[in-house]
Amino acid sequence: MKRTSFLIAVLALLLAGRVSASPSQDIADQYRGVANRLIDAAMNDHFAFERLTELVDTFGSRFSGSQNLEDALDWILEQMQADGLDNVHAEPVMVPRWVRGKESAELLEPRGRDLPMLGLGGSIGTPAEGITAEVLVVRSFDELEERQGEAAGKIVLFNVAFTSYGETVAYRREGAIAASRAGAVASLIRSVGPYSQQTPHTGAMAYEDGVAAIPHAAITVEDAQMLQRFQDRGEPIVVRLKMEAEMLPDSPSRNVMAEIRGSEFPDQVIVLGGHIDSWDVGQGAMDDGGGCVAAWEAVRLMKVLGLRPKRTIRVVLWTNEENGLRGGNGYHDAHLNELDDHILAMESDGGVFKPSGFGFTGSDEAYEIISEIATLLDRIEAGTINRGGGGADIRPIMNEGVPGMGLQVDGTRYFWYHHTDSDTIDKLDADEMARCVAAMAVIAYVVADMPQRLPRATS
Amino acid sequence: MKRTSFLIAVLALLLAGRVSASPSQDIADQYRGVANRLIDAAMNDHFAFERLTELVDTFGSRFSGSQNLEDALDWILEQMQADGLDNVHAEPVMVPRWVRGKESAELLEPRGRDLPMLGLGGSIGTPAEGITAEVLVVRSFDELEERQGEAAGKIVLFNVAFTSYGETVAYRREGAIAASRAGAVASLIRSVGPYSQQTPHTGAMAYEDGVAAIPHAAITVEDAQMLQRFQDRGEPIVVRLKMEAEMLPDSPSRNVMAEIRGSEFPDQVIVLGGHIDSWDVGQGAMDDGGGCVAAWEAVRLMKVLGLRPKRTIRVVLWTNEENGLRGGNGYHDAHLNELDDHILAMESDGGVFKPSGFGFTGSDEAYEIISEIATLLDRIEAGTINRGGGGADIRPIMNEGVPGMGLQVDGTRYFWYHHTDSDTIDKLDADEMARCVAAMAVIAYVVADMPQRLPRATS
Repeated sequence: MKRTSFLIAVLALLLAGRVSASPSQDIADQYRGVANRLIDAAMNDHFAFERLTELVDTFGSRFSGSQNLEDALDWILEQMQADGLDNVHAEPVMVPRWVRGKESAELLEPRGRDLPMLGLGGSIGTPAEGITAEVLVVRSFDELEERQGEAAGKIVLFNVAFTSYGETVAYRREGAIAASRAGAVASLIRSVGPYSQQTPHTGAMAYEDGVAAIPHAAITVEDAQMLQRFQDRGEPIVVRLKMEAEMLPDSPSRNVMAEIRGSEFPDQVIVLGGHIDSWDVGQGAMDDGGGCVAAWEAVRLMKVLGLRPKRTIRVVLWTNEENGLRGGNGYHDAHLNELDDHILAMESDGGVFKPSGFGFTGSDEAYEIISEIATLLDRIEAGTINRGGGGADIRPIMNEGVPGMGLQVDGTRYFWYHHTDSDTIDKLDADEMARCVAAMAVIAYVVADMPQRLPRATS
Repeated sequence: MKRTSFLIAVLALLLAGRVSASPSQDIADQYRGVANRLIDAAMNDHFAFERLTELVDTFGSRFSGSQNLEDALDWILEQMQADGLDNVHAEPVMVPRWVRGKESAELLEPRGRDLPMLGLGGSIGTPAEGITAEVLVVRSFDELEERQGEAAGKIVLFNVAFTSYGETVAYRREGAIAASRAGAVASLIRSVGPYSQQTPHTGAMAYEDGVAAIPHAAITVEDAQMLQRFQDRGEPIVVRLKMEAEMLPDSPSRNVMAEIRGSEFPDQVIVLGGHIDSWDVGQGAMDDGGGCVAAWEAVRLMKVLGLRPKRTIRVVLWTNEENGLRGGNGYHDAHLNELDDHILAMESDGGVFKPSGFGFTGSDEAYEIISEIATLLDRIEAGTINRGGGGADIRPIMNEGVPGMGLQVDGTRYFWYHHTDSDTIDKLDADEMARCVAAMAVIAYVVADMPQRLPRATS
């Protein structure tokens, strides 16, 4: 047979469905119809976006230990019941309770200005009269080390330009430790973000045993740059920092969840969700109310379409991701004996913008299967599966061997809003959110219903 | 002669400088050398940007009646002297003095939230205990008219989407009048801007004789949209508005100016500048410190290059553009007898982003000459002269027949920052500002030095 004839023959066979590129290609073919129904249902209306809007408008930010969060959880449980989902329930966990109280940073020298600021989560407060001190501005931990002779008794400001969140967040997390070691009385950071309209950015921070705890807060990108320029011009800078922040005793909260019970293997579980808590600013719409409602909607749509897969699909809205991970750890502890039958865990916690696909952590064989299933998402341009991915809340069960994956979306503006007062519903797009719903629904459903279990690593 | 031969002959003549497209083409040719020297000098360093940075860092916002503004004016006068400019002086004007005081807007129902806000310039304050009232949200003056039976005793919120500044600003300017007519006790607007990160936007507003004055303030785009959604869901909205705002007696301020005196016709004057006052938020870097320093730099560069044109070039930094126009009107009054010899007035008050050229108001003949001169700016892509243009501060003298022009720049993000706390130096680019300097320098110099007076309308 000549080469062209051979290729034509192969093509004919492929078109006839007699040859597949891989065994898992069959899965995609087999589930194309139901996948399209799920995608169409997700894209057909803006139910998820409207539910998210009502959630975030009604309850606002949902910080661990707040009444807002617990009220939101009650509402979600009611709504899940009304959706007709199975096994709607809450699982209690205790969460840290840090309260911000009133706070301010006032520039006194070289000129007066109220500096927009946010105390960082877990920081101690200041005395009631505040801490008034000269400011030493540094651009890095290295510069602080070089200049540590100058830091004693001062407020150290880390004026660090945003590169990536993973890199720059080190100053938010560990800035107070480094500043305290150098003898500072408080520390400030330039807010961790690539764009600012005088937008302070909060988030978690740490102390270290044996190093004196000092107050730690974020000022805006604009003001941090200005203080740097003052220092570069040789002008002394004086700031008065006042923070009422304090850590109260742990407080009760809950992971909330609902299921579609599997028809054949109900003990085998596909988990998907996000974290329902947020920082105490904005609406926590993007981080991560959107991820929660998108995952929930993926499951609700299966119910609406009358789909019941062989395995159980469980949506979990974890509590306290932001400042404790008690929800993710609590789920791990409560379900430790069932994790062998946790087939897959999926999280959305990178915003609900236009999805491109997922990052997957698991065996090569499972990666291949997920990649094949994801071709069903090509029509919404969400079919790319990258190696590596998951989410903070599913990390504890992933560490026990559960394959995990995280929704990947266009992150262009994620850190414009993340952990700020401008993480509000208007920053999201209803169609983009619907695509996120569709992406999670298709993967979760097919993995839950396909004949074979998603394989784990063989080691 | 065949057609090609004819064209070649014309081309040869053009190259030899024997044929010009118009008489004014000669001007462009004649001034190409000096124009290039001015452009090169402007683009060669970031002197203007650095001077602006020092100005706005040192003095911050420069609101009419504030010490900041007067201190900034003193510094500018000193710097102009140090630059070696001629006839450095200030001309006194009295300016309105509105003081914001402390202010807040608190959402009480359906849930608690501090609403970021800015009182609008000229508003009265509230009683010390604030005004606590239900909110009626409307999307337009028309909707308020339709629903005016519901407005009595309420706070009216105009939730009006930004279309253009010229259009949407009507709600900031006249919202309190319309709301008061309908019986409201206070009025709020959605901040006038196309983009927000919880960014309140201030600006001037008006009352009307015979209509009771009520407090008037701006909340953010995000919160205005949320209040609209609350209302659409039938949830009662209650806000407590507190404003200490009050109008104090007029206060002394100054227009400051400096010159390069003309060598042949010193009484013939080309005026260029911007307004040195700003709102009482941010740094007034873009609106309009940048315009001021760019115009000033255009004149300083002539001095540095040893250029002395036939006519006088005067840089004027007008005071009180934002909430009174007392500077522009004061200049008009003080120079009324000299306006026949005001050859051209030029203003930069649209931000100092990448310039495209100017808008020009004057006779057809003058338009043609300016357009020819502007071809000297083609190398920096700033040579487009549109019909119509000027500036608020030069409008009073333009109304007396002085030809006027306004610098035109890329306005993509102008209203992201305008009148907000995020109008800070970091939003500007040093190279773009240098192009603005070059554009103003070339036009001002050539008009000041060319043989003929720039003609006025013949009528």
